[in-house]
Amino acid sequence: MQLASQLSVHRNALSLHCCLTRKHSQLLVPSPAVLQQPLAVPDRLLLGPGPSNVPPRILAAGGRQLIGHLHKEMFQIMDEIKLGIQYAFQTQNPLTLAISGPGHCAMEAALLNAVEAGEVVLMGVNGMWGERATDISKRLGADVRQLVKPPGEYFALQEVEQALDQHKPSLFFITHGESSSGVLQPLDGLGELCHRYECLLLVDSVASLGGAPIFMDHQDIDILYSGSQKVLNAPPGCSPISFSERARKKIFNRKMMPPSFSLDMGWLANYWGCDDKPRAYHHTAPINGFFSLREGLAILAEQGLENSWKHHKENSVYLCEGLQQLGLQLFVKEQEARLPTITTFVLPEGYDLQEVIAFIMNKHAIEISGGLGPSAGKILRIGLMGYNSTKFNVDRVLHALKDALQHCHKNKL
Amino acid sequence: MQLASQLSVHRNALSLHCCLTRKHSQLLVPSPAVLQQPLAVPDRLLLGPGPSNVPPRILAAGGRQLIGHLHKEMFQIMDEIKLGIQYAFQTQNPLTLAISGPGHCAMEAALLNAVEAGEVVLMGVNGMWGERATDISKRLGADVRQLVKPPGEYFALQEVEQALDQHKPSLFFITHGESSSGVLQPLDGLGELCHRYECLLLVDSVASLGGAPIFMDHQDIDILYSGSQKVLNAPPGCSPISFSERARKKIFNRKMMPPSFSLDMGWLANYWGCDDKPRAYHHTAPINGFFSLREGLAILAEQGLENSWKHHKENSVYLCEGLQQLGLQLFVKEQEARLPTITTFVLPEGYDLQEVIAFIMNKHAIEISGGLGPSAGKILRIGLMGYNSTKFNVDRVLHALKDALQHCHKNKL
Repeated sequence: MQLASQLSVHRNALSLHCCLTRKHSQLLVPSPAVLQQPLAVPDRLLLGPGPSNVPPRILAAGGRQLIGHLHKEMFQIMDEIKLGIQYAFQTQNPLTLAISGPGHCAMEAALLNAVEAGEVVLMGVNGMWGERATDISKRLGADVRQLVKPPGEYFALQEVEQALDQHKPSLFFITHGESSSGVLQPLDGLGELCHRYECLLLVDSVASLGGAPIFMDHQDIDILYSGSQKVLNAPPGCSPISFSERARKKIFNRKMMPPSFSLDMGWLANYWGCDDKPRAYHHTAPINGFFSLREGLAILAEQGLENSWKHHKENSVYLCEGLQQLGLQLFVKEQEARLPTITTFVLPEGYDLQEVIAFIMNKHAIEISGGLGPSAGKILRIGLMGYNSTKFNVDRVLHALKDALQHCHKNKL
Repeated sequence: MQLASQLSVHRNALSLHCCLTRKHSQLLVPSPAVLQQPLAVPDRLLLGPGPSNVPPRILAAGGRQLIGHLHKEMFQIMDEIKLGIQYAFQTQNPLTLAISGPGHCAMEAALLNAVEAGEVVLMGVNGMWGERATDISKRLGADVRQLVKPPGEYFALQEVEQALDQHKPSLFFITHGESSSGVLQPLDGLGELCHRYECLLLVDSVASLGGAPIFMDHQDIDILYSGSQKVLNAPPGCSPISFSERARKKIFNRKMMPPSFSLDMGWLANYWGCDDKPRAYHHTAPINGFFSLREGLAILAEQGLENSWKHHKENSVYLCEGLQQLGLQLFVKEQEARLPTITTFVLPEGYDLQEVIAFIMNKHAIEISGGLGPSAGKILRIGLMGYNSTKFNVDRVLHALKDALQHCHKNKL
């Protein structure tokens, strides 16, 4: 711009500023009275499908003063998170990090980086998560095929093989811990099978990680993600994810840029020190979310994966026995297929699900949950995850359920 | 599935489970030793462009025990956040909420909901944020045009009008507080102008909200977003956003679904109670991120917007005077165009930017920052935001800078 017009622009801007002050001297929207009240957060035992209660050590970490998202101490904490995820996932993949968002963002990050428009993908749908992965993949313009089973069932190897053979997908999605139905999906053999069909295996372990065995490298899983707010007992908002060398190659040889900047794995890999370039600014990370996730992973590492799997299994079996003693019917018939972190069951005739849930919340300050997606209105769900997976909590929730069964029958009057 | 084949599948699964236990009885990846060390977070005064230090009241809110993301008390807190955003934005838009992600996610949410592939969009680029909005829009398949000015300058109305007339975009992006250059963009008249050209006005106020006057409704802004970690002093991870009726209509009359499920405004509007349907599960929100954001908004409401604008302005002027007294040159020439939250300046000959930044960090535990994007390597940036915008902090950073100027000159030996 020439000087004369520059001056005119500046005069224009100055008058704009004056005008702004004059024109808007009164606030249109007054300060809301309700914000003068203190923040009200009731105490609850969270035995739904997540979030779980957060132990004091993790709350304290999340309550620490911030440092910058590009400080070297932050990179050190992120390196520690990466090691913690590699341990929890049982993987040596260098491309391992935490997404700055809830589990759905990790699902979206996996799909939008690994899949391009027009590619055939196959979704294992036996509950909510296969439906969500289908929704996301459609938005990406993928050619989405489904392998469907009723909620409460899992997929057998030969069923998957038949579908791979029929659809020839480039990616197969399956859920390890189907939190909407309480099913634990066996994973052995799936990776090898997918690779025989030149297909990547993508596994959702949001609800199962730390609560049931998973071995990313041994089981040939190509992309694995989880959440922070289940067994890891951190607040929601950060989601561990890891990519095998096979997945990494596919992602970094895309034809088109991924349709999201925030979830672009090239940028994220750099920020997390997973490439050979100096770390650069990508986004402002959820800094104390990372503090909390680091502590959640540290607690899991201290306890040991095998111990964590064992105590989740034991407390889940203890809960199942208690539910059966109350005359309640477990939704997943086969014991080995029951997810140790989330137990699902059916109420007898004469009860309204929502009434039972509300009774337990209002009288006992305990959250239990109804179904979700295909299981909505059919089942109840009790989560026992990490810090919350204790015999004491099982006793508390069984006591509350017994009370509800006595008070909520429709013939109670 | 028929019973016989079901049984066979179940036997198969049981054998898979046994096999899993047998095959992977040893952990491949051991528990990382570094996670046995305590979390290490140094104390710092964060006077970069954000995040800012978090005041005790907000840290305490973020450290509270969780409730569920669908509990009625959570909906109440979200309603309070909505009121707080409406106040901070000076808007009565019903479609007002917080994105569960950092500022970049809000930028992405704005663009991917409001723009469809093939549409012409115009980006005002005078620093980092116009470049990022360009990147995101290209990924969405938009036909992206740019109106470019050097960092340190702002856009005049007639320049914008000329570009609107030339490109006929459906959306114009501009940054209110250009944190990479320290420029405050005058906004008056832009909304009216855009609407004359049948174009939506999208404004980024991440770095300016609460620090400089903005009036979403009076200024006819169609989409406005901000961040939590600047003047609002909450941790990063939640981002206020609001849509005018004009923007809402465009978004809810798209031809194609938005390419992201996580940021789909239809789902988010429902979860935030902005439509007439019962609130449904969309994603697991960053629950204590919401607690913190609520407190950040409550502090702003308590203090009052005008007071907040005034004290940011005063402390920024005080800082500018101090910098000039040290013989330093301010990057933004015109006083009224200086962003009150982030002040930019140039070092004299004989200094290395990175050395000065490192000296101040290492000796004084104060973060100040270099440039970003087009201003990288050219300027230094000092942020005074919310809780951190005090005369005491200005004195601290000026003292540290004076010390650095004495010790870091290349002829110092």
